Amino acid sequence: MPKIIECVPNFSEGRDKEKIERIVAPFKNNSAFKMISYEPDADYNRTVVTLIGEAQSIISALYQFIQVAINEIDMNHQKGEHPRIGAVDVIPFIPIQDVTLDECVEYANIVGENIAKSFAIPVFLYAKAAKKPDRVSLPTIRKGEFEGMIDKIKEPEWYPDFGVAKTHPTFGSVAVGARDFLVAYNIDLPTDNEKQTTQIAKAIRQSSGGFQYIQAGPAYLEAQKHMQVTMNILDYVKNPIYRIFEVVRFEARRYQWDVKSAEIVGLVPKMALLDSIKYYRQVEDLPFDKAMDLDKITAFAIHYLKLRDFSKEKIIEAWI
Amino acid sequence: MPKIIECVPNFSEGRDKEKIERIVAPFKNNSAFKMISYEPDADYNRTVVTLIGEAQSIISALYQFIQVAINEIDMNHQKGEHPRIGAVDVIPFIPIQDVTLDECVEYANIVGENIAKSFAIPVFLYAKAAKKPDRVSLPTIRKGEFEGMIDKIKEPEWYPDFGVAKTHPTFGSVAVGARDFLVAYNIDLPTDNEKQTTQIAKAIRQSSGGFQYIQAGPAYLEAQKHMQVTMNILDYVKNPIYRIFEVVRFEARRYQWDVKSAEIVGLVPKMALLDSIKYYRQVEDLPFDKAMDLDKITAFAIHYLKLRDFSKEKIIEAWI
Repeated sequence: MPKIIECVPNFSEGRDKEKIERIVAPFKNNSAFKMISYEPDADYNRTVVTLIGEAQSIISALYQFIQVAINEIDMNHQKGEHPRIGAVDVIPFIPIQDVTLDECVEYANIVGENIAKSFAIPVFLYAKAAKKPDRVSLPTIRKGEFEGMIDKIKEPEWYPDFGVAKTHPTFGSVAVGARDFLVAYNIDLPTDNEKQTTQIAKAIRQSSGGFQYIQAGPAYLEAQKHMQVTMNILDYVKNPIYRIFEVVRFEARRYQWDVKSAEIVGLVPKMALLDSIKYYRQVEDLPFDKAMDLDKITAFAIHYLKLRDFSKEKIIEAWI
Repeated sequence: MPKIIECVPNFSEGRDKEKIERIVAPFKNNSAFKMISYEPDADYNRTVVTLIGEAQSIISALYQFIQVAINEIDMNHQKGEHPRIGAVDVIPFIPIQDVTLDECVEYANIVGENIAKSFAIPVFLYAKAAKKPDRVSLPTIRKGEFEGMIDKIKEPEWYPDFGVAKTHPTFGSVAVGARDFLVAYNIDLPTDNEKQTTQIAKAIRQSSGGFQYIQAGPAYLEAQKHMQVTMNILDYVKNPIYRIFEVVRFEARRYQWDVKSAEIVGLVPKMALLDSIKYYRQVEDLPFDKAMDLDKITAFAIHYLKLRDFSKEKIIEAWI
């Protein structure tokens, strides 16, 4: 069985379309993995790439991608709202199928070592790949950003995990890591009231006493003129989507609101949807076929979970 | 303002009614505190006493109570299903009003020291009053029970917090501690299916990924022939009763069950009920008066939360 991972490199160019195309070119037309999306953000001046597929093929393409980024981006002239330490800022490896989180930590080590050796770019290992407690969280690593890292890296506690204590003059440095898969999930509310939306987010999020594997907060959607509870589900087995949806639904009722709709950002595993579909089929006392195909899963998920902008392509299993 | 605490001493006699009356006599007819209940359990051979009121008056009465327990109970001849280390087994102090948990820790220290000095009974400080990590949890202290403690107390790591390493020949030893108030809350389900009831308990309890301040499990009620989700709510502000009730309700729907009823065991603060009543009044878009009296609170709580065996006397504020 091929080892299937997700990899979500972020690079520090979100405005120049032609440059962006050149930078992501190494990810195109590879039969062993797919580039599911690349989403530039002009304010952030940053692009998020989502790759899924066979691990070694993704890793090979990453080196070409780093080389193009070195050629295309000079961090001395890059400005944007998103904090960043390098032309490629962060590379996380995420286990998907027939691969463990520990193996993803290994990929981070291999890729980190090679980037340092081949390109003279210092590498920090983060998240589950971190070797020091203060490198688990990206914001701690990023503090001071590209400009500050020139001196920060000379402090003994910020000696890089690979490479030497000297940032690359135009690229900077890069964080490479491994983490578990998470579902990015948002629930749309028919309101612009941030305070009440925050109250609902607090009902479900771990940090306020809610569910163990939920991070959540309020967000206002400018274009659509309403609030949403935006969240990460860190364990979709222990905190299934339907349960979060139903709690938000009954919490919203105290303000006489119905949930408008909901969205999955990025990818979702088939099982996460099936678990929730099963709940609603049981409630309705209707048959549930766990072997249903992805089209059927898509239709049920849209119906029961009020998903908008959803299609089969958002299900991981559509790609592997 | 008087410092109001709850104190729940447990003693090791649950069968001989006359003895029990003599042991609880020091708690009767005191104007500064009330003995809300004393509940003997014959199988356990143990009685749980619930006191509420002014701290110093409760503490004074505790010393008389210890003296009577010494006279009435010989642990060398006591047998029962509940593990125990002494004639009085455990004395927890719980903050209720105008008193902090730290002050309750102080009460535990004062009472512990006096019991050791006046009666030559060794004292272990537990829960928030514990001075060693392995004394936080009662089961660890109780391991070996009255009989085993005779030798266990001679081990250096089990030297008592007050007194010397020698159990009282007939009384044994006692655990004295402090903890936060908790709401003991059970939800009745129309089923005898333990597996499905456990699934519902797992949806809400912290240890399975659920709400942060909920401990829950399944229990079968012999007399009533149905299961319940039995739980402790360790923080009723962050995990309000209505939220737990509504989650159990929608989880039960997948089995086509309606929640039958629910119960509060022991006491509940007025605010815990008001918060939940407010939720349902808002959902129904009806007025909510936070200054309503205890009779009204009782009626609403029974109506909205389906409480059985509930009366005003279960509300803490009825006693202070």
